[in-house]
Amino acid sequence: MTALPADLAESFFTPRGTPGGRITLVGAGPGAADLLTLRALRRLQEAEVVFYDRLVDPEVLGFCPQAEHVFVGKEVGAHAWPQHRIDAVIVAAALSGKRVVRLKSGDPGIFGRATEELAAAAAHEIPVEIVPGVSAACAAGAALGRSLTERGETDRLTFATATCREGDETPDWAEALRPGVTLALYMAVRRIETIAAELSRAGAPGTLEVEVVGAASTARERTLRCTLEEMVPAMAREGIRAPAIILIRYPKTAAAPQPSAAVVGAAQS
Amino acid sequence: MTALPADLAESFFTPRGTPGGRITLVGAGPGAADLLTLRALRRLQEAEVVFYDRLVDPEVLGFCPQAEHVFVGKEVGAHAWPQHRIDAVIVAAALSGKRVVRLKSGDPGIFGRATEELAAAAAHEIPVEIVPGVSAACAAGAALGRSLTERGETDRLTFATATCREGDETPDWAEALRPGVTLALYMAVRRIETIAAELSRAGAPGTLEVEVVGAASTARERTLRCTLEEMVPAMAREGIRAPAIILIRYPKTAAAPQPSAAVVGAAQS
Repeated sequence: MTALPADLAESFFTPRGTPGGRITLVGAGPGAADLLTLRALRRLQEAEVVFYDRLVDPEVLGFCPQAEHVFVGKEVGAHAWPQHRIDAVIVAAALSGKRVVRLKSGDPGIFGRATEELAAAAAHEIPVEIVPGVSAACAAGAALGRSLTERGETDRLTFATATCREGDETPDWAEALRPGVTLALYMAVRRIETIAAELSRAGAPGTLEVEVVGAASTARERTLRCTLEEMVPAMAREGIRAPAIILIRYPKTAAAPQPSAAVVGAAQS
Repeated sequence: MTALPADLAESFFTPRGTPGGRITLVGAGPGAADLLTLRALRRLQEAEVVFYDRLVDPEVLGFCPQAEHVFVGKEVGAHAWPQHRIDAVIVAAALSGKRVVRLKSGDPGIFGRATEELAAAAAHEIPVEIVPGVSAACAAGAALGRSLTERGETDRLTFATATCREGDETPDWAEALRPGVTLALYMAVRRIETIAAELSRAGAPGTLEVEVVGAASTARERTLRCTLEEMVPAMAREGIRAPAIILIRYPKTAAAPQPSAAVVGAAQS
């Protein structure tokens, strides 16, 4: 059972089991209002209360003027509300019989803390639906006019977050970026120096291509292309800030030659 | 320069440089028509010709009755049209001055052969736009009512295809599935026995959780949950066929203990 913050109990809480209450986790997409899906639009139009984050375009809220709008201010490094408080208020609103939309930037299933919200709803037997959305990396690829995967060169696409649970070990960046992988880093701007240093130490070629897309799909969108070795100074020079997606491509053909290949090369010369 | 198939030249080709011709690669999403984005809908409504694949819901074409609809029949293992022919016809249509939509299932940037189509357009200096879409793995997560990533347990999400370029080396599945990773396999149903055998040989625990979602978001959607060791027989028993997304979760806590941890444990007992 999730505890309900006292200051919110009065406005949201009514006796349990009111029929009709439900929660829909809606992917708001990367930012631009027109990258919402038709299903997301319909859920917003049906909603009685919408809980939204800082990264959601205000225009999106214009799709649901009938609903109460509650800002829960979640953004990396600036959690206006802790996650457990968000869990508690969406549950309380649904228990009061309301059709609740929890509007989450990108896709709700990717780095969105959906697990906690789903568990809170399940603990109260509240019906839940997930409406998938366009993730920021896909919008970044679109902004660059380029595919995230390239057949024969990058057959894996890894989404990784640099913002993990407090106390967790640092992610193993060298393990994540292997030949054949496009690595899409989320919530990584603040940790980019560490990431670059670890990749370099692990032997990732400094010549690998890096693309950074800030605020993908929004009016503030900006893109930067550089190499891995230029990444840290280039991002600083361009003043790239969160939210941004950092794409690092490690094509198979950029992999260091295997010892046997080197021997063949030597024999031929 | 991409050669134009002779049988198509007559219907599509007019002299180069006709103003207004352009190509939009539109992500059609995972299948359900209402998982199209608002921007995708608008581009369909503005289109003069729409080239679509087998995985696109016929209802989607109902959004653009004004456009010519051309089926290019791309599906894994059943390419009605080879990729170079698709490249050629979309280019030819744009060169004739048409507003072309190339409707691609999922997100155009993920395993969609967009690179070839973008290169063909660039070779003819045709303006191109990419409209990102909801990828099938996101719809699979939504169908399961579950997040694809789980904070502290799976901080990486890897999309991998089992259908690579002919002649390429087999993907290194053990490298792709490490502790802390959710692996989303695309186009892998036909190769699932090989994948399972390689993961097993590399020491992935047989108890890892597997979820398979067939035809995510469509009327034919079906889900299957099992363990990694049951995956092959369970998929056969349930008659899972393409298209399907196979999710394998390797939480950090499921990783085999490190030798040093075992020593600490022994010292304490």
